[in-house]
Formats: sequence, C-alpha cells, structure tokens
Amino acid sequence: MNYNSWFDKEPFGAITINDNAKIKLKSYEDFEKIDLVFYKGFDEILRVELEKNIYDYNITLPKFSDGIYNYHFEAYINGNVRFFGKNEFNGNIKEFSKDFINKYQLTVYKKVEVPNWYKEGVMYNIFVDRFNNGNKSGKINSPKKNSFIYANWSDEPMYIKDNNGNIIRWDFFGGNLKGVIEKLNYLSKLGVSIIYLNPVFEARSNHKYDTGNYKKVDPMFGDEETLKELIEKADKKGIKIILDGVFSHTGVDSIYFNKFNNYNEIGAYNSEESKYFNWYKFKNYPNEYECWWGINDLPNVDEMNESYRNYIIYDKDSVLNKWISMGIKGFRLDVADELPTQFIREFKKRLKEVDSDSVLVGEVWEDASNKVSYGETRTYLLGEELDSVMGYPFRNNMVYFLKGHISSSDLVNRFMTIKENYPKEAFKSNLNILSSHDTTRILTELDNDKELVKLAVLTQMTFEGVPYIYYGDEAGLFGGNDPENRKTYPWKNEDTETLNFYKNAVNFRNKNETLKIGDTEFLYNDDDIFSFIRKDEKEILVLINRSNEDKNIEIKDKVLEEIFIDNKNKIKIQNNNILLNKKSYRIFNVLKKL
Amino acid sequence: MNYNSWFDKEPFGAITINDNAKIKLKSYEDFEKIDLVFYKGFDEILRVELEKNIYDYNITLPKFSDGIYNYHFEAYINGNVRFFGKNEFNGNIKEFSKDFINKYQLTVYKKVEVPNWYKEGVMYNIFVDRFNNGNKSGKINSPKKNSFIYANWSDEPMYIKDNNGNIIRWDFFGGNLKGVIEKLNYLSKLGVSIIYLNPVFEARSNHKYDTGNYKKVDPMFGDEETLKELIEKADKKGIKIILDGVFSHTGVDSIYFNKFNNYNEIGAYNSEESKYFNWYKFKNYPNEYECWWGINDLPNVDEMNESYRNYIIYDKDSVLNKWISMGIKGFRLDVADELPTQFIREFKKRLKEVDSDSVLVGEVWEDASNKVSYGETRTYLLGEELDSVMGYPFRNNMVYFLKGHISSSDLVNRFMTIKENYPKEAFKSNLNILSSHDTTRILTELDNDKELVKLAVLTQMTFEGVPYIYYGDEAGLFGGNDPENRKTYPWKNEDTETLNFYKNAVNFRNKNETLKIGDTEFLYNDDDIFSFIRKDEKEILVLINRSNEDKNIEIKDKVLEEIFIDNKNKIKIQNNNILLNKKSYRIFNVLKKL
Repeated sequence: MNYNSWFDKEPFGAITINDNAKIKLKSYEDFEKIDLVFYKGFDEILRVELEKNIYDYNITLPKFSDGIYNYHFEAYINGNVRFFGKNEFNGNIKEFSKDFINKYQLTVYKKVEVPNWYKEGVMYNIFVDRFNNGNKSGKINSPKKNSFIYANWSDEPMYIKDNNGNIIRWDFFGGNLKGVIEKLNYLSKLGVSIIYLNPVFEARSNHKYDTGNYKKVDPMFGDEETLKELIEKADKKGIKIILDGVFSHTGVDSIYFNKFNNYNEIGAYNSEESKYFNWYKFKNYPNEYECWWGINDLPNVDEMNESYRNYIIYDKDSVLNKWISMGIKGFRLDVADELPTQFIREFKKRLKEVDSDSVLVGEVWEDASNKVSYGETRTYLLGEELDSVMGYPFRNNMVYFLKGHISSSDLVNRFMTIKENYPKEAFKSNLNILSSHDTTRILTELDNDKELVKLAVLTQMTFEGVPYIYYGDEAGLFGGNDPENRKTYPWKNEDTETLNFYKNAVNFRNKNETLKIGDTEFLYNDDDIFSFIRKDEKEILVLINRSNEDKNIEIKDKVLEEIFIDNKNKIKIQNNNILLNKKSYRIFNVLKKL
Repeated sequence: MNYNSWFDKEPFGAITINDNAKIKLKSYEDFEKIDLVFYKGFDEILRVELEKNIYDYNITLPKFSDGIYNYHFEAYINGNVRFFGKNEFNGNIKEFSKDFINKYQLTVYKKVEVPNWYKEGVMYNIFVDRFNNGNKSGKINSPKKNSFIYANWSDEPMYIKDNNGNIIRWDFFGGNLKGVIEKLNYLSKLGVSIIYLNPVFEARSNHKYDTGNYKKVDPMFGDEETLKELIEKADKKGIKIILDGVFSHTGVDSIYFNKFNNYNEIGAYNSEESKYFNWYKFKNYPNEYECWWGINDLPNVDEMNESYRNYIIYDKDSVLNKWISMGIKGFRLDVADELPTQFIREFKKRLKEVDSDSVLVGEVWEDASNKVSYGETRTYLLGEELDSVMGYPFRNNMVYFLKGHISSSDLVNRFMTIKENYPKEAFKSNLNILSSHDTTRILTELDNDKELVKLAVLTQMTFEGVPYIYYGDEAGLFGGNDPENRKTYPWKNEDTETLNFYKNAVNFRNKNETLKIGDTEFLYNDDDIFSFIRKDEKEILVLINRSNEDKNIEIKDKVLEEIFIDNKNKIKIQNNNILLNKKSYRIFNVLKKL
C-alpha cells in the first residue's frame, strides 16, 4: 500500500476549518474496500470508505472543526481487516496490529495571521541581569537588601545555597535596561529585529520568575521611563520588544502574597481578608499552599480566579493593557503548559483587541501541536491561543544530528513531522532555538566545537521559522546548566570569529527574502549531509556536512550559483558535483531546474 | 596563719631581677619553723626558712633571674609538716594536703618601659573591609576575581560555603584605607589615639589572616601610598597605627606558597626548588603540609627557618623594616601562642632597634604571665617579648560580673590576680577588650542591655590598662559570633545614645591623667557593686552597681566630690551615704582622707 502523508495529502500538513483535504492512496493488493478512520482523542468520529479506481484510492474529506485528529486506514480482504498507519521514520504508510497502530496526525485550525515583523524577524533573548550594565561607573541600581553583587562582570555565576539547596542570598551582576538601550546599535548591526526580555518586573531573584509586582519594572533594571525609552529607541531601529509573562505563579515576596512583609499591601499570606487571598490555593493557611513544582518561593495562582484575570487581562490598567499600551509588542507566556487553555484564550483575545499587531508566544518544550498536559491535549496552535512557541525540538534535532546521534534522514523526518503538524503560520513563527536560559549553551552542548556551532547557526539562519539567539551565544559564551548558562555577555572579550559568523549569517538571512518567507523542501544525499531548499519565487539550496570527512555529492537537474554569507561574489557552478569539506556548509541559488 | 600576697609581700606583685622581695607572715600557732619553697616548673629551686620573731615571720628573698616562680609554705610542728598555699578566691593563705597545694605565683622580669603613647592611649581596632569605604561613589577598589560584594553596606555578613563548610567565594563590603583616612576626624573626636588595623597585606580573604604578600597592601584596601597617607594624617592628629603581623602561617594563595598559580613567583607548592620551599613543612609534597588548626588554606611556616626570619625580621627590606620605616608604630602578633619564643624575642629586639618607641602586642587569650602552650610556660611578659597582650580576661570578667555570674569580690580577685602576676608596665599596657573580631559583640553578650554595656564601657575607660574599642561597638553594633560580629560600621545609623556615652567616657579618661597612669586599689562594699580607686597624686573613686536594684552604700573616711563624664559641674558630696541607682555608676574625686 503506498501512501505518504507528506506528498499524498492535499493540502500538505495542517488544514484550516475551511479546507477539504484530499487523500490519495495506491494499492496493488485487491482489497474489497479501504476505510479511512478519524479519531479525536480516543473517540472514533469519522469513518469513510475511499473511492477506488483500479489501484488508486481517493477521498475528499469533509470539513473538520478545529482540533487535533488522528487517522489510520483499515483494509478489508477475504473477511479480514488489516490496519495501516504511519511509519515512525517518515511519512510512509506501514501495517500494524490492531492495538498498536501509529496513527497519522491531522491538525485542523482556525486561520490567523502572525504579524510579518514577527515571522520574518530575528529574535534576541536577553537575561537582563547578565547582558549589560548601562551605568558608566558600573554602579548597581537599587541593590536589594541582603543580596550579593559579583565583584567582577566576568566572574562565574553561582547560587548561594544552604545545605538543603535553598537559595539564601540572591546574586546579581547588575545588568539593566539602560544597558540594553546602550547596546541597541550592536543588536541592530547584528541583524536582530525582536528583543525578548526575560522577566523585568520587580522580583527578589536575579531571574525574576518570582514576580513581586506585575506592574512595576524591577528597580535594579530601571523604571517605567527606562523601559519606555528602550521601546522607543528600539522602535527607531526597527526592533520590537517582547516581555516574559509569568502567570502561573507569583513570588512569595510580592505585593500579592507578601510573605515577608516587605510590601505595604496586605498580601494573601498576611490576611484572609486580603484582596489577593483568592488568587492562591491554601491547604493550611497561611503556611501550606500550592506552589510551582514544590518550590515554596513560587505560590501558584488560580489563573481563572476572576480578580486575577481582571488584574492581568481585563482591568483598564491591567497588566496586559499597561505594558501593551506602552509599546510592548507581545508576551512570552512562561510555562504555558501550566496555564488553563481558557486563560490563554482570554489573554490572546484581549491582546489582539488591544494591539492586533502583537504576538503571543508560549514556552512549550515539545511538539506543541499535540502536547498533552495534565491529561488534556492542548490546543495552543489552533488559532485562538499561541502565535508561536519556543522551538526546543529544533535545538534537540540539530544537536542530535551534529553530534552524529541521528542521520540526516531522521533529522528530516523530525522536521517534517513538526512542519506537518503545525499550522503554516505557526511553523513559520516557530522559534528556532539553539540555547536558552534553561538549557546548556550550544557551544558546550556541541563539546566546544566551534565549527559545529557554525553549522547549527547557519541552519538556524537559513531555516523556516524565527531564529532565536540567546544573548552571548554569538560572542562565544559557553556553559553547562544553570547557572553556567547565565554568564555575563563578555563585552570586549567576544570570540570574534563566532561573532562575525553570527553577524554574517543573520544579515544574510535578512537580505534574502526567500529565507524569511520561503517554504522548505528537504533533500537527501547522504546520512551526514543535511540539505534543504527554501523557496518562494526563488530557491536557495543549503547543504550541511556534519562529518569529519570531506564529501562529494551530486545535485541533479539544477543550475546552481554559489552564494556566501559574507558578501563574497556569487559564483556560477560549472558542474553539480559538489565538494563539501568536513564540517562545512555551502549555499546556492538554484537558477533553474533542468 | 596570716598571709596575703596582695599586702604582705613587698613590692606588690611581679618583681624585677633587681628586686629583693620581702615576705611577712603571722602565725599564732607554735610552729618549729616555716619554710618558704620556690619552684620553677616542677623543680624546687629554693627553700628558705622564714625568720621568726614571736608570731611574726619574715624573709628578704635573694634576687631571682627572670621567670615564673611558684611558692608555698611548709610549717613544721611536732614532727609533722603542714602545707600552705594560696586561697583561690583572694590572696589569703590556706592549708592544703601535700599533693594539692595551690601555689602563689611570683613573676620576675627584666624591666622595660612601654612607650607612654601606648600605655596612656586608647586603641581602636578596625577590620578594614567593614569600617568605611572611602570611595565617594561606593566604588570597590580592585575587586578580586570570583568574589562577591555585598549589595548594600548595611547587609548582614555571611560566609559562602559549600556543604563541607569550606568557603567557596569570599565576600566583601569594600571598606578600605581611604575610608579610614576619611574617618580620622571622627576617631580623633572619639578620643582614640591608637588605631590597630586587622591585617592589611594582600590576601584572598576579607579578613586577610591568610597572607598573600607581606610586603604589599591589599589592592582592595589601597596601596602603599594610601597607607603612608593614613600614617601621616593620623600622626597629625596624634594617632599611631599598629598593624597585624601574621607570622605563624601564610595563605595558600600567596607569592610564597602559590597553590593556585595566581602569582608569578615560584612558590613552595610549585617546586621544591622554590626559595620558599623550606618555609613550609610538607609531609607529602606538594599536597600534604602542616597547616594552622587543620585549615588547608593556611599552611604553617617554620618561623625559625633562616630564610623566613631574614624575610620577616633581618633583611634590609624585611617586612619589619619596611613597615616600621614607613611609620607604623608596632605590630600585634597574631596567635602568639603558636610562635616560637625565640622568634618573638628576635622580632622584638629588632623592632626596638629600628624604633625604640614602637610596641609589640600579642594575641594571648588568657593570663599571659603563666600561659602554657605546647608544654612550654611562655615568657611573653618578662621583658624580652611582648609589651602588651589582648586582655580577653578583662572582657570575660566584666561579662561574668555584669551578668551576675560572679560577685564583685570574685571580680576583684580575678583582676588582682592579673595585676599581681603581670609586670607593672604590662598591666598598664594590658588591652582592656570588650569585643573583638573573634568574640561576640559586647552588646549581644550582655543580652542587648545598653545600660550594662555602659557600665562595661565606663569600667573600661576608668580602669588600669589600655581601653580597646572594637570598631562599631561605640555605634551600638550588635552581633553574635563571626560573621555577625563583623558587620559594617553603621554610618548615619549609629545608636547616638551609645555613641555619645562612648565619646564622653573616652574623653573623660583622656582628660584625667589619674585614669591613664594611676595605680588601682579595689574596695568592697556589696556583691553587686564593683568599686575601685585609681590614684596617683589624685584619687578617683569609681562605683558600679550592676544590680537591678538601687543600692545605698557608705564610703568612709573620705571627702568626695562627684564628677561627671559629660562635663557637668562637679558636686561636693555632703555625706558619704551614696545612692547608686540600679545599673548605674558614679565617679568621685577623693578630696582627702579623713
């Protein structure tokens, strides 16, 4: 039986609620009939018989409501039924026993547009404390009581913990928003068009995921004026700012919970009469309460509590309104998996009402189209929730490939699966991450092999989706898990080789419309070579050789012109036997197909 | 048998090698003879029969060489011998069984003069990192790699340790020598005339007892120029500077040991060819070496190693020469008990040769006249070693008394014992300590009772010996053991009541010559009242009531005039029934004896 969902379903991949998908299948066995069976979760919701025409089977499907569906085929022959689903290694069909069918996924979504500035942009993620201190003297803004400042910008970060592993003093380098403003020119030259700031609201920690006040910029980072100045100055350079929205929990040391009485407001911890009391879920007032992953510092909020939703979403001066009105172009929802679907939908709806040009990004670590959290299949990408997610699969896939753990065909399968499962806009908006504040640095992950890092970066900058640069990666920062991955940006000690490569690669992307908006077609030449074509009116071919050996491959049926990220002149290729040096890449314009 | 060494021996207390002490004893029992027996260590060195005249027994002793001697009496009657020694609670004689005689001590010393500026001075001890940052902007001089700076001057100090209790990063507030210079005016007004600085030589830690370079000022504290400026500016205000000399060990991170290769010199750890190799005692080169109290960071030195002695004492540019030439007026020898007697003697001799007006102070925690360390009775105070010791017994005695653990007569006994055992100059030079960087703060030790602290301070400032103020005690700093006792001086947040009391008490001492140079005579009125008279040509009576009750006492045979530390007019007392309010003191001029 021949079917490959990548090629034999139209349109390719996810469809909208207005699409009538067509499926065609070929079989040389003489089945009495073939049924196509659709499931939503565990429920069969549709069974249709394919129309048979000798060896060809076809069906035009009805429209579906938005949702995640799975399908398989049942073929009847001689009174028996045989079951066919998806081969795990590519889109091909494969026979299974009844109880173990690996089904195909069909994503059906409501079409929404993601703003061009986002899906054609390049994102730069800044962990503010570690990026740049804008005070000339190195002065620290409003240092927090009983906290530590690293003696030198170049010191190695560490947590100061007691014997139980609890943090007893917070450690700061003193990066701030003025420091970001100071480096806008740098970022602009690097080719960045979106800055995503890790949380900037007042909080006790250096990471600020323990929100103390959603409506106040942390005084160590600056104040509202500084943030406004950043937004305005960035805007003049065509750079948009996105903030981190941490709505699954607050800090204990907050105006809402106020465990340590550091704030004047009556917090939930202080009195059951507190207006914030119902935001939290106490088991035994006041010392036992639900908290995030058991971390006492982070009491969970009941996001659906009306007062909380009003405060975050609906009030005239809600958190959403306040910062979007100031010019923030969207939020990255921290731990989206922990947020109720309804909360995300309400947030998104309101966000688009306030600014239709804004975006909502979510922290999801896996394929976000079929993520199950707390027993619920999430609907992040179906149109009413997230515009974009943190694309950790991109990082994992590239790392596996570059380290030789998977072949290029495995890699293609992994990318194709995501591409197939995600709505088109979501795939184009997918954040292609190599490192983040929650992972090891890519250089460390790739065993300090700068050449491999370049291949990862080159892929990132030529691939479909939004490149995501974790501050400092471009300067050659290395480091394992937190806190090693949160070293300071090494101003004046950058690895210039890496930095130049980044600059060239990012600007190369920005100059080539095709890389920003084109579709992707994967080729296969060799297990060690990852190759794909980006295409709109033009076509660009990217070839990446991960191996320690030079490789010769032949690209058939195309006239090629080699192009270079560093503005070297294009070179027309004489024959299509292409030498790829070990751990190297080449990029070509496809001039015409022969 | 009547004998009290406090009154019946002449001269009182320790004697010089040129003195012939006289002892008189009275007995109404008809002893055949009474022998006076002297010991040095376990050896009987002299036995003389007292000359009998009815009930009176007398002897004029031969001269003794310098040393610590003990004596008791043996009385013969009816063929039996009875043994008499010292009552533990005062100077009186008491009968003992042969094997348990508590002997009297006789200290015999070579007379040396301690400079007047020292024995009439008031010492202020500064832990430099915590006293004052002289940089206007709060800037930190030359921060050390991978160290932490407290975010605020007022933060609570803590150590940053791993699970094994090892310090993994050093913590600094950023106090420096410029900060001391800036506060010379303050210190001068407080009445201070000697500043003793905890170590200032380059070292990795904040306390700097882990010397990195004996010949270099720690860059965080400043440089030689700053120290010179401090010496000169202090001198203009009549203030002398004493440094901490840490000669029992160095730091591992030093130009001498150089464990971490942070220095260019070839350290003992780096090569057995190092010129410093023989300073240290390796058991298993290079990782096993003798160290101070088992702390790996502090390798012990062999003080008697010739190269070490030359470096510290004898070279033209020796540590001693270098700093004394610059104007330092002496050293406080850290852990004197760990230093060989010979090393201290050579250091002292050289010190006096270089500057006869300088002093050598030692860290000794107990009665320094009979301290045994490593099996050897030390000879610190016999003339060739220390001019003065850290008087921790003063603190302990005052704390015990003020907290009600001992009566005033016990207190008198304790003070009299020291006074009797110490050479006169040594007692006058004894540092009367209430707190130090190695003890809890006096305010905390006295359970935050400011009134008791005042009584302790008042005693300190009217007592025989050199008052020693641990920076910040005068400002009301509190704190338990290290690091709590090393908080920063609370500039602008001083406890003004305490500070004013200190200022008055110190300046009161400084104005009254009798308090600086007078002898001491103790009185006894009441278990709760400590009273003593300081006297030279004049007499000043001090009465201290520790109890929670007002007390009435009668001072007989004297005409009194009350005097006040805050310059209030003197008041002639009409009758000698004196009311002492609870937890209070009164001071009187004794105008004449009736």
